[in-house]
Amino acid sequence: MAQKPSIPKGTRDFSQQEMARRNYIFSTIRSVFDTFGYSQLETPAMENLSTLLGKYGDEGDKLLFRIQNSGEKADLPPEKGLRYDLTVPFARFVVQHQNEISFPFKRYQIQPVWRADRPQKGRYREFYQCDVDAIGSKSQLCELELVQIVDRVFSLLKVNVLLKINNRKVLTGLAEIAGFPDKVVDITVAIDKLDKIGLDAVKEEMAERGLTPDAIAVIEQILALSGSTAEKIAAMRGLMQGGSASGLVSETGMKGLDELEELFGYIAAAGIATEVEIDLSLARGLNYYTGAIFEVKAKDFPIGSICGGGRYDNLTGIFGLPDMSGVGISFGADRIYDVLLGLEKFPEGLGSCTRLLFANMDRDSVLFLLPLVTELRRRGVSCEIYPDPSKLKKQFDYADRKQIPFLSISGSTEAAAGQVNIKNLASGEQKAFPVGDIESILSFIR
Amino acid sequence: MAQKPSIPKGTRDFSQQEMARRNYIFSTIRSVFDTFGYSQLETPAMENLSTLLGKYGDEGDKLLFRIQNSGEKADLPPEKGLRYDLTVPFARFVVQHQNEISFPFKRYQIQPVWRADRPQKGRYREFYQCDVDAIGSKSQLCELELVQIVDRVFSLLKVNVLLKINNRKVLTGLAEIAGFPDKVVDITVAIDKLDKIGLDAVKEEMAERGLTPDAIAVIEQILALSGSTAEKIAAMRGLMQGGSASGLVSETGMKGLDELEELFGYIAAAGIATEVEIDLSLARGLNYYTGAIFEVKAKDFPIGSICGGGRYDNLTGIFGLPDMSGVGISFGADRIYDVLLGLEKFPEGLGSCTRLLFANMDRDSVLFLLPLVTELRRRGVSCEIYPDPSKLKKQFDYADRKQIPFLSISGSTEAAAGQVNIKNLASGEQKAFPVGDIESILSFIR
Repeated sequence: MAQKPSIPKGTRDFSQQEMARRNYIFSTIRSVFDTFGYSQLETPAMENLSTLLGKYGDEGDKLLFRIQNSGEKADLPPEKGLRYDLTVPFARFVVQHQNEISFPFKRYQIQPVWRADRPQKGRYREFYQCDVDAIGSKSQLCELELVQIVDRVFSLLKVNVLLKINNRKVLTGLAEIAGFPDKVVDITVAIDKLDKIGLDAVKEEMAERGLTPDAIAVIEQILALSGSTAEKIAAMRGLMQGGSASGLVSETGMKGLDELEELFGYIAAAGIATEVEIDLSLARGLNYYTGAIFEVKAKDFPIGSICGGGRYDNLTGIFGLPDMSGVGISFGADRIYDVLLGLEKFPEGLGSCTRLLFANMDRDSVLFLLPLVTELRRRGVSCEIYPDPSKLKKQFDYADRKQIPFLSISGSTEAAAGQVNIKNLASGEQKAFPVGDIESILSFIR
Repeated sequence: MAQKPSIPKGTRDFSQQEMARRNYIFSTIRSVFDTFGYSQLETPAMENLSTLLGKYGDEGDKLLFRIQNSGEKADLPPEKGLRYDLTVPFARFVVQHQNEISFPFKRYQIQPVWRADRPQKGRYREFYQCDVDAIGSKSQLCELELVQIVDRVFSLLKVNVLLKINNRKVLTGLAEIAGFPDKVVDITVAIDKLDKIGLDAVKEEMAERGLTPDAIAVIEQILALSGSTAEKIAAMRGLMQGGSASGLVSETGMKGLDELEELFGYIAAAGIATEVEIDLSLARGLNYYTGAIFEVKAKDFPIGSICGGGRYDNLTGIFGLPDMSGVGISFGADRIYDVLLGLEKFPEGLGSCTRLLFANMDRDSVLFLLPLVTELRRRGVSCEIYPDPSKLKKQFDYADRKQIPFLSISGSTEAAAGQVNIKNLASGEQKAFPVGDIESILSFIR
């Protein structure tokens, strides 16, 4: 039994410092969700496989962790699997509890999910998702709330971000006025590469994907649009109304522009510090989003998107509840962690939980110190008495490794005088206090 | 696909109100753990089966949830299982990370565990444990900290509890001076029933379990002890030193009494509001505890123990790190939840997250209200604008079902006057405020 134990690949232990940092991220996000009136929800780690299968495509089905049945059914095929994301359990919850829920239902959920992906740098088999969704309303005020949430979260976390917004209906409109309504995905995949490969290569790719030169010319008209968001929307409206080279009209495209215009109107009225831009090349979740599409990138740190989402018109239909439109976004906790670490944005002192260590000189001194320790903890100060009367070197090392900033070495002499010595380990400053003078002690160690 | 979805038996969804209550319990417990300098730790939901198997007895092995291998290994026996408790992952963590840890290592962990138990009332297949342990010191100050933690947690939760303390070494001593050193478990199991079946029945059971009348007489001497804790310890010491009817001496028993005496000395010095008593019939975890044994019961609510633990001398030995003594306790979150609910000790207003709902009268009024809503949220007030300009009845119902205490119905008239109306839905009081007068609005809705 003496082989050194380990954990399954793709999983992680989180130490005190990592926990403190992760809790900082989660509690910041939670506090924002709370001020927007979203309800926290938790669902079980295990769901019935019938709930999970077929929701994530063939590849997703393969990546589900299946749980062996227990007892008599052990040899039968598994009936349960581990949660793969928070969206399907949310849809399942909404349908299962529809009679208890007050719609529009605004919920958030912060829980781990499990995927049997090949582990690699930055990709884990167990990781947390932070999802926030509003379901049961088609109002653009729901989109606005998500924009405001992004703005507030990253303002509190002190990270400069760029929020990109697209709209699936506008992409549909683009394909329609280009005369290729069934090529939305081809067109989007191609223009998604504009930044990387340039306009000529994008046009080449569209040609390879079967678009005619006329169609490509229409798309080029849209891609060439510049100016403010309002100007872009107005120009796109002109093109969707029949003003493009094709002369074709797209009702769906105009509906998408209405949505974008309404949303940007709300954003302007609400006041947002975050830079927000329309980005027609934003193609995430193209298969299920039906309206707004969001993506957030850190401006000062090279990493993929740290937050994203969109509107879906039929999330719960697969569980038998049709016509439920919803919109949601998901914060990528692991990437946000890397951004805060890389930009040194974590608040100082997050890792250390103990403020003051009382060295253990002998039993009588400990008895003398105990009431003070009790009182300090009651005042919210995290403090410890070293449990054993070990050599001071060992006790010092403990304080050092736990990054405890204040140390008290108070033995029989101090006890006899009714005093405690406290030393600021960073500055070296040391002071003696009457044991009952809590206020002075508090102001010294704070 | 239209069958109504469900979740696996023995698992639960937690709604907003349940989450708020559970978070209240967890955050109270966490805040106490933090002030005592314990580090939070999280371990993966999945552990290697080699880590888990053989640690919980044959019955426990059967109750482990096993996870099918993925990919090519799918047909091979499972290699991973879900966490069954927090103790074994803690031991695994300590051994795996021993070179990074500063001992004594004080950690806490609040995470779900999974057991394939037959589900029944109050017993779930997924439930949270809250464990706090100190490992690497034999000092009774560690036991004291746990006593203080119990005292502080239940004082903050406003629950009257009784903390019972026993010591495995004293039980060993009892068996030794009775002349039956190998019958510790038999003796303890019998006296565990004292409250329920009375002294005569306990004596009968001991006889059935093979104890002689002389041995039973010795045990009766101990059970008959009364008086203060100090008096009980002194009397037990007399008996363990050869003063019992058998005249036998138990070194182990005296060591156990030394531990109890030291612990109660610390408790007296530290100042504890909780009632603490020695209870020799406390037999939990008899197979692995080697020193102190703890159990906490709610005094005003009929339910089993809500917290328990003890000292174990060789937790990490099974993973190849010998001589690590530790002591820990575990808070039973589900039972504490039931106690707080039954005694109505949850703070008021925990369930509702939104303080103020702005009815949606029309688009222009919403645009007028948006800056105020942004500012209120920035001040930490949870508020919402109803997303659709629905009938007021529907918007009222939403406020009602979400238990939102304040409602603003401000339309074009108010917007033109630069005012907002806010109504206290409980008292009926309604007031109009200039939209910029944040302070007055805050004081009205707080």
